[in-house]
Amino acid sequence: MNNAYVLGVGLTKFGRFPERTVESLAAEAVVSALEDAGVEWREVEQFYAAHVNQGVAAGQRVVKEIGPSGIPVLNVENCSAAASTALREASLAVRSGEFDLVVVAGFEKMQHGVLLNVHPEDSPEVAMGTTVLPMRFSLMAMEHMSRYGTTVEQFAKVTVKNRDHAVHNPKAQYPSPITLERVLESRMISDPITIFQCSPTTDGAAAAVVCSEDYLRRKAKHARRAVRMVASGLASDVDELAFNRFNLETVRRNARTVYEKAGLGPEDLDVVETHDCFSVAELLAYESLGLCAEGESGKLIDDGSTRIGGRLPVNPSGGLIGKGHPLGATGLSQVAEIVTQLRGEAGARQVEGAKVGLTSNMGMWSSCIHMLAI
Amino acid sequence: MNNAYVLGVGLTKFGRFPERTVESLAAEAVVSALEDAGVEWREVEQFYAAHVNQGVAAGQRVVKEIGPSGIPVLNVENCSAAASTALREASLAVRSGEFDLVVVAGFEKMQHGVLLNVHPEDSPEVAMGTTVLPMRFSLMAMEHMSRYGTTVEQFAKVTVKNRDHAVHNPKAQYPSPITLERVLESRMISDPITIFQCSPTTDGAAAAVVCSEDYLRRKAKHARRAVRMVASGLASDVDELAFNRFNLETVRRNARTVYEKAGLGPEDLDVVETHDCFSVAELLAYESLGLCAEGESGKLIDDGSTRIGGRLPVNPSGGLIGKGHPLGATGLSQVAEIVTQLRGEAGARQVEGAKVGLTSNMGMWSSCIHMLAI
Repeated sequence: MNNAYVLGVGLTKFGRFPERTVESLAAEAVVSALEDAGVEWREVEQFYAAHVNQGVAAGQRVVKEIGPSGIPVLNVENCSAAASTALREASLAVRSGEFDLVVVAGFEKMQHGVLLNVHPEDSPEVAMGTTVLPMRFSLMAMEHMSRYGTTVEQFAKVTVKNRDHAVHNPKAQYPSPITLERVLESRMISDPITIFQCSPTTDGAAAAVVCSEDYLRRKAKHARRAVRMVASGLASDVDELAFNRFNLETVRRNARTVYEKAGLGPEDLDVVETHDCFSVAELLAYESLGLCAEGESGKLIDDGSTRIGGRLPVNPSGGLIGKGHPLGATGLSQVAEIVTQLRGEAGARQVEGAKVGLTSNMGMWSSCIHMLAI
Repeated sequence: MNNAYVLGVGLTKFGRFPERTVESLAAEAVVSALEDAGVEWREVEQFYAAHVNQGVAAGQRVVKEIGPSGIPVLNVENCSAAASTALREASLAVRSGEFDLVVVAGFEKMQHGVLLNVHPEDSPEVAMGTTVLPMRFSLMAMEHMSRYGTTVEQFAKVTVKNRDHAVHNPKAQYPSPITLERVLESRMISDPITIFQCSPTTDGAAAAVVCSEDYLRRKAKHARRAVRMVASGLASDVDELAFNRFNLETVRRNARTVYEKAGLGPEDLDVVETHDCFSVAELLAYESLGLCAEGESGKLIDDGSTRIGGRLPVNPSGGLIGKGHPLGATGLSQVAEIVTQLRGEAGARQVEGAKVGLTSNMGMWSSCIHMLAI
C-alpha cells in the first residue's frame, strides 16, 4: 500500500460570521491550505467536501468559489465526523495509486442551538427522550461518577484547560481563560453539564492537501513540512440502543484497530486532539483512547498531564469547547492542529518535541481516528 | 493497483411506496445484493451509503435496519450521481489494498415533483431562470435541432424505446409500452420536452457488493459471476455558467478519460446504461460518449441501433424514463443492469453476448462513468 501525506493545512477563524457565505469560508480554508502546501489549485486532482447541513452539491459550490476547475468533486457526510471521514477517503484514493494530489475541505455554518436529531420518529431513542445530546453525555457522566468517584469539578476542569489553551490559538472562537468557579456556576444544561462545558455554535472551515509518496519525492516544494498519515480508522456503532454509552465504546474499538495498524500505542503519542463536544466526552476519551486506565481520567485532568507542558497534552488548539465546533469542519481542524504541532509551528501553544499525534473525531454513531507522524 | 470486482447486485422494485421507509427499501436492496454475491453481512468490512435528500446519517440508519454491525459507515452525496460516485469510492477503497469486501447502497424516497434547486439565491443561474432542469435540457434540444436538424420526434422516440425495454424489467416503474403519438401529445413541460420525456418521481434502492481480486480468488462462492470494474471516472463541471450545455461536455471529457484508462473505446462496448433524466439527455449522451459522431444521435434512435437487438443497445433496463429515477439509487441501478447483462441473466431484455458495458450517470455539475467487463 502507498503512503499518504498531509502536505498542507488551512483554517479560517472560527466564530459567528453572519455576513459570510459557507462557500467563501471553505474557499478561504482551501486557498490557505494550498499556500501552506506550496501547491497550485490547477495541480489538484480531486476535491472532497465534508459538511453536515449545507445543502446539495455544497462541494461543487465551493469549487466554483475557488475558481474554474474540472476536477472530480464529491460530498461526504458523517455527522460531526464528516471531515475526518472525508480525509480518510482522500487517503484511500491516494493509497489506491490512482491519485497523487487531492484536497479535502470541511465547512459549516451552524444554526444557533442546533441539536442533531437524526432519529426516526418511531425510534426507541425518541421514545426514551435520549436524542438530546447533552442528556446522553450527562447520563454517561452520572455513570462515571457513580462507578469511579469522578467529580463535577473534574469534568469542569476540561473547559478551564481547553480555554487556557485557546488563548494561544488565533483561530479560536473563545481565546480567553475562564475560572473553574465560573464554569461550575454557569447555566445548567443537563446535570452535571453546565453551558460552558458545551461546545458552542460555530461557523468555520478547515482544509488539507493530501499527496502520495511519489508526489512528495518528485514535486513537493515543502516536502520537509509534510506529515505522514500513519494509520486511519473509521468505526460505527454496533448497538441499536447506544443511548447510555453513546459511542465511546466505538472510539475504544476504533483506537485499538488504529494502534494495531500503526504498530504504535498510546504510549507513543506526543499530542492528541480529541472530540470534547461536551467536557464529559474528553475525560471518557482519555480512557477510550487508552491514555489512562478505565476510571482514571479524573486524575489526568487533576494533575495537569493533559495540559500543554504536561505528560501528554490534549487539545492544545483549545478543543471544540475553546476553538469552536463547526460540525463539518471539526475533524480537519483537529488534523490542522496536529500537523502544526508536529511541524513545530504552533507558537505559544507548541508541544515541545512532538513527533507523533492523534486526532479522535466523533459523529453520531461513528468514530474517526487519524494517527499522524513527522 | 489492485482490481475491484462487483460480486453481487440488488434492486428493489422502483415505484411509489408511501407506506415504506427509505431505510427498509435500502436494507432490502442490500440483503438482495448480499444473497446475489453469496456473502454474509458479517463479512462486510465497510458500508457506503448514497442519497441526495434523506437526512443526516442515513447510511447509519440503514445499517441498523439491516442488523447489528460495527463496520465503518459513511454517506456520499453527489446529486443524482451519488450512487455511482459512492461505488467509485468503494472501488478506490478496495484498490488501496485496505479492504477486501465492501457494500454500497443508493436509495431515495422522492417528494413529488422535486426539482433540485441547488443554486444560491444570488447566482447567475437564478437570475437567468435556468435552474429548472427541463428548461436547461430544452435549451440544449433547441440548439441541437437548429445545428443538426434533429427533430422533436427523434427526442420522443427515446421514450418509446425505453418504455419498450422496461416492459421486460420486473423492477421498472413503468413496464408498459407507449406510442410515439402519445409521447408527443402529452402535456408540454418545456418545448420540445413533453411530460413522458421526463423521468418520473420514484422511490427505490439499489446496492452492490464490491470485492478485491484476493477475495474473489480465495473466498468468493460465485466468483464466475463477478464483473470486473475496468475503469471508473468522475468529472465535475468546469464553467461557472454552464446553463446552456449543462454538463454533457463534462460527460464527454469524463468518457475520454475512462476510455483512456481502460484502453478500450466506444467501439468495444456491447451495452450501455445512460442517464436519460430527459429524452434529450439520452441523444446528447450518444455523442458525448462517442457512440456516434457529433450531431448523428438522431439517426441512431431512428435506425434502432440502440434498441435491444440493435448494434449497441442503450438502456435495456428501461432507463430513468422507463425504470424510474430515485435520485440517490440511480447510478447503482444502472450498474445492477450492466452486471445482470454481462452475466447473461437479463431474460427477455438480454443483450446477446454482452461482455463489456458502460454506465453514465449525471448529477448536477458532475458525471460519473463506470466501465465493466466479464
